[in-house]
Amino acid sequence: MGLLKATGVVYKPVNEVDLGPDSDEFYLRANVKAPRMAGLFVKVFTWFLESPIFGGILLYFLKRNNLIHKLVSFAELQEPPLFVPLHPYQGITENEVKCLEPDMSPPGKVQQAVDCLQSPEDVPKSPQLSFERWTILDYARAYTSGETTPKLVADRFIASVHESSSRHLQMSFFINYNVEDILKQATESTARHARGEPISVLDGVPVAIKDEIDCMPYPTTGGTKWMHKVRQCKNDACCVSRLRACGAIIVGKTNMHELGAGISGINPHYGAARNPYNRSKITGGSSSGSAAVVAAGLCPVALGVDGGGSVRLPAALCGVVGLKPTFARVPHDGVLPINYTVGMVGILAATVEDALITYAAISGGLPSDHPSITVPKIGLPLLKSANYMSSDIKMAIYREWFNDCTDDIRECCSNAVAKLSDKYGWQTVEVTIPDMEVMRLAHYLTIGSECSDSIASYLENMSKAEIGWDVRVGLSVYSSFDSREYLNAQRIRNRQLQFHENIFSVADVIVTPTVGVTAYTIKDDCLKTGELDYINGAALVRYQIAGNFLGLPAVTVPVGYDKSGLPIGLQFIGKPWSESLLIHIASALQALCKSGYKKPEVFFDMLAVAKE
Amino acid sequence: MGLLKATGVVYKPVNEVDLGPDSDEFYLRANVKAPRMAGLFVKVFTWFLESPIFGGILLYFLKRNNLIHKLVSFAELQEPPLFVPLHPYQGITENEVKCLEPDMSPPGKVQQAVDCLQSPEDVPKSPQLSFERWTILDYARAYTSGETTPKLVADRFIASVHESSSRHLQMSFFINYNVEDILKQATESTARHARGEPISVLDGVPVAIKDEIDCMPYPTTGGTKWMHKVRQCKNDACCVSRLRACGAIIVGKTNMHELGAGISGINPHYGAARNPYNRSKITGGSSSGSAAVVAAGLCPVALGVDGGGSVRLPAALCGVVGLKPTFARVPHDGVLPINYTVGMVGILAATVEDALITYAAISGGLPSDHPSITVPKIGLPLLKSANYMSSDIKMAIYREWFNDCTDDIRECCSNAVAKLSDKYGWQTVEVTIPDMEVMRLAHYLTIGSECSDSIASYLENMSKAEIGWDVRVGLSVYSSFDSREYLNAQRIRNRQLQFHENIFSVADVIVTPTVGVTAYTIKDDCLKTGELDYINGAALVRYQIAGNFLGLPAVTVPVGYDKSGLPIGLQFIGKPWSESLLIHIASALQALCKSGYKKPEVFFDMLAVAKE
Repeated sequence: MGLLKATGVVYKPVNEVDLGPDSDEFYLRANVKAPRMAGLFVKVFTWFLESPIFGGILLYFLKRNNLIHKLVSFAELQEPPLFVPLHPYQGITENEVKCLEPDMSPPGKVQQAVDCLQSPEDVPKSPQLSFERWTILDYARAYTSGETTPKLVADRFIASVHESSSRHLQMSFFINYNVEDILKQATESTARHARGEPISVLDGVPVAIKDEIDCMPYPTTGGTKWMHKVRQCKNDACCVSRLRACGAIIVGKTNMHELGAGISGINPHYGAARNPYNRSKITGGSSSGSAAVVAAGLCPVALGVDGGGSVRLPAALCGVVGLKPTFARVPHDGVLPINYTVGMVGILAATVEDALITYAAISGGLPSDHPSITVPKIGLPLLKSANYMSSDIKMAIYREWFNDCTDDIRECCSNAVAKLSDKYGWQTVEVTIPDMEVMRLAHYLTIGSECSDSIASYLENMSKAEIGWDVRVGLSVYSSFDSREYLNAQRIRNRQLQFHENIFSVADVIVTPTVGVTAYTIKDDCLKTGELDYINGAALVRYQIAGNFLGLPAVTVPVGYDKSGLPIGLQFIGKPWSESLLIHIASALQALCKSGYKKPEVFFDMLAVAKE
Repeated sequence: MGLLKATGVVYKPVNEVDLGPDSDEFYLRANVKAPRMAGLFVKVFTWFLESPIFGGILLYFLKRNNLIHKLVSFAELQEPPLFVPLHPYQGITENEVKCLEPDMSPPGKVQQAVDCLQSPEDVPKSPQLSFERWTILDYARAYTSGETTPKLVADRFIASVHESSSRHLQMSFFINYNVEDILKQATESTARHARGEPISVLDGVPVAIKDEIDCMPYPTTGGTKWMHKVRQCKNDACCVSRLRACGAIIVGKTNMHELGAGISGINPHYGAARNPYNRSKITGGSSSGSAAVVAAGLCPVALGVDGGGSVRLPAALCGVVGLKPTFARVPHDGVLPINYTVGMVGILAATVEDALITYAAISGGLPSDHPSITVPKIGLPLLKSANYMSSDIKMAIYREWFNDCTDDIRECCSNAVAKLSDKYGWQTVEVTIPDMEVMRLAHYLTIGSECSDSIASYLENMSKAEIGWDVRVGLSVYSSFDSREYLNAQRIRNRQLQFHENIFSVADVIVTPTVGVTAYTIKDDCLKTGELDYINGAALVRYQIAGNFLGLPAVTVPVGYDKSGLPIGLQFIGKPWSESLLIHIASALQALCKSGYKKPEVFFDMLAVAKE
């Protein structure tokens, strides 16, 4: 890391840092100095923090004690700032990949994705398979064969959401869903199927959208009580309109952590989203509802937004697949403009195949997003090919980082990596990636500054009482950062990108557990106030940051369960624009793990008729 | 501009703003609320500003009274931040332009530039021409014909610099020059000429380098007393090594405003650079010495760095040509890393032709600078072609802005524009460019934040007594900006870029006076302390900001003199990558004005032998 100075760390230049397994760079564990707080404590703490003089002093000590001063604010770095993690596109070099033009129509792309898959009839049934969620192709087949219709599924969906909200379940999956709008879409889709003219395999498939993404006819609350009052939703976001163009039924806006400013999914306004594997546990967030509805079987696919792991970590906690594409792969138009350089639309899906289909539907950057780069082609891996698992894939592991999680997670994830090596001969490469904790702090400072700047002018005109207490604490901290801290964080971004590029010169992907802890308990004291739990928070985002701060693509796949039956995910972080390789790897891993998948405690069977 | 709120302006979205001549956007004059200060006053003010409690209060009122709070800090903008003014390259569409590959060798590019020029013999002598500086081709011709040698020029140069530093002149042109190093280069060049093997027309031509650019064997002081102690110069900057590769004699490091943190050129450590047209006047800055040495005849060309007009404004005040290429056109490697998103290497030259040759030598971005864009080709205008002046060029004028300068400047610049219309038939297009003063503040906040961040860790370990008082005031203000202010400034950058793109859809260039005032008097009280004069400062940078904040290319050409004989420049701001058009226009303008050029009060005749 470098020489400690009185005030800030002096970082060594990148080319003097050893990234090998025997590097003398030490692994710094998260040093969170902030007790869990909820209920009355968080209120008192917030009052102190928001008071003019004492608040300033408190913030100073919070930043100092949590090493932000030493590691970021006063650090000395030679690398210039890198503000936006935009990567040049250099073509796709993998084998067994279909290469699509980015401006192909969404249904056309979906068909290309389907052509990459084995048809369901050709998939050998694994006899020991204990639990499977319905996939997009299951829906398509059931509609085509007439076993069920989009209208019947919509009815069942509406009844199920109703049940999930009942007093005895209180799952808090959705912030908004409009029965009339759902039935209208379902009726139209049913008619298309009746005519034998479905638009794509997504026609009639229910898809849920995180309430951070514009989607007609709903307001976009961002999990708040006020955002939709000051910012009207006038159009579908680009990603939503692409799904709609494929015939998907948009079934409503899922719950999320307020403003995406936390990752527990405990929302004091719309309820704490509950984990389908155990109702007393969090879903993770901020795309809490999107992960939960997929886990609970309500939709095969939902969209989320991932600014600091917000797609991948709830996916892991809820036992589903999470895919966060490269920065600028999916147009950001119509996503709440609360963070600009770290947030990306991502996919939560029942299976890797469903993630692939959805990825094909929504990806393809618009030139207007970032006019300075060539719009990359979209690679889709040929998952039906018998050869696709035989590639010689190198997986980088930073062992100390990998192991910085609970015993159950470490064991389960290590086993999954070992299986990949055993079955496919893929190699692991031991590496050192310095300053991961520094990157977490720099990312926190960046996403906080961008969020604070984005909503500051709204906040000036409203009562603080409309905001949850945990978010008020976050906003106080966010607004305390100065321009030097912001710029130093961007220098750290540049430095970390160089480290990661160097790692990718010796490995194809970086493999990690997706999160450091499994879903923890929702305590009663936080339901009304929200909760501050920065220690669990740091463990949840531990492996997420490179995906956001460096804009790298990443995928999480369920690989098992802890002793109490809560899901565990394994994550792969890839080179820029390498989604095809990540999906390929995820598919291979899923094939090894799926026989062990378990049914959640809360599950709704949308196609029960079809498979009965 | 938009509705005024209690705290900050709410800016209208770009597409609702009328950019035509009858727009209701009002022109906001700079509202600088800070009296001129020097001597004891600036010391007392600095002490107050640097005191912990009172300083904070003072900064609050400074920022509030100078409209930073209202126009930037608390403003509400819909445009996302644009952090780096990097433009996509879309090819060159002009006629009469040579198009070079960016990786051509510097001597090869120089030869291509020379081929664009008329040979000196073919230039019709204008009988009324009262004063001409020696050009690069004059040097080349004199060396080739044997009228003089690089060694003789070097001797004369050294004697002249010595004289310029004498008690009766005190021009303070250079911070460093090494007689031995100059003579060594001159001897080698002389030998090459003797063998008939000059590398290029630049072989043996003296070129001075601003002391913000790395250049062996000199330390890089940045105009400070301390920078070179904490940051060693180990290599030539890329732009310097390209000139060296062409055979140019690097004659030393020119004076500059300390840290580039001011634009008067009054440096308390190395002396106030003095204007060759009037020794009692400033040169402007921060590339003060580079402008002055060209004006005084010591070199036909010098390099500067332009972060907020720092090349163009001293060029205008000293009556020479200043060219600031598009952001990323010239690699920034080896320039002091004190500002990242607004600073660019620029050229100060005796004539437009010399600017063209030097531009050819140093331009061509290295892919490592900004890997995400295609490296643009380099366009060189065919100035020898008889057709080049006949193009149909449209010059945008924002009349209220254009006229916000002294009477002499307004009259002189209006006349120059009228001449262009009369002689070449070029049209003017009346436009409105909103919020120019807002852009000035946003740029100030950006360059200040970047400068502060870059040197903060050095400052912590040194005595403030090593820093000039005016710069200490600047650094206090710079370090007061928070991340929201920085991000809002970047939103303003995006908004302004869109305005400018819209202007460029109806015009080829924007034409303005280069500065709002001519060179003002150096008062005795500022020689030791530096000077705070934000009112004159705002007038000097008034027309500069788009070049830096938006990364647009710009050129200034001398067009006349005020009543007291001080030079006046006219500026053209172009589309991204349109340097060839700007040079073309500048050449046409120079042809109309050069018969009126006057000899400076302080002038050294490097080729006297040759022309005697």
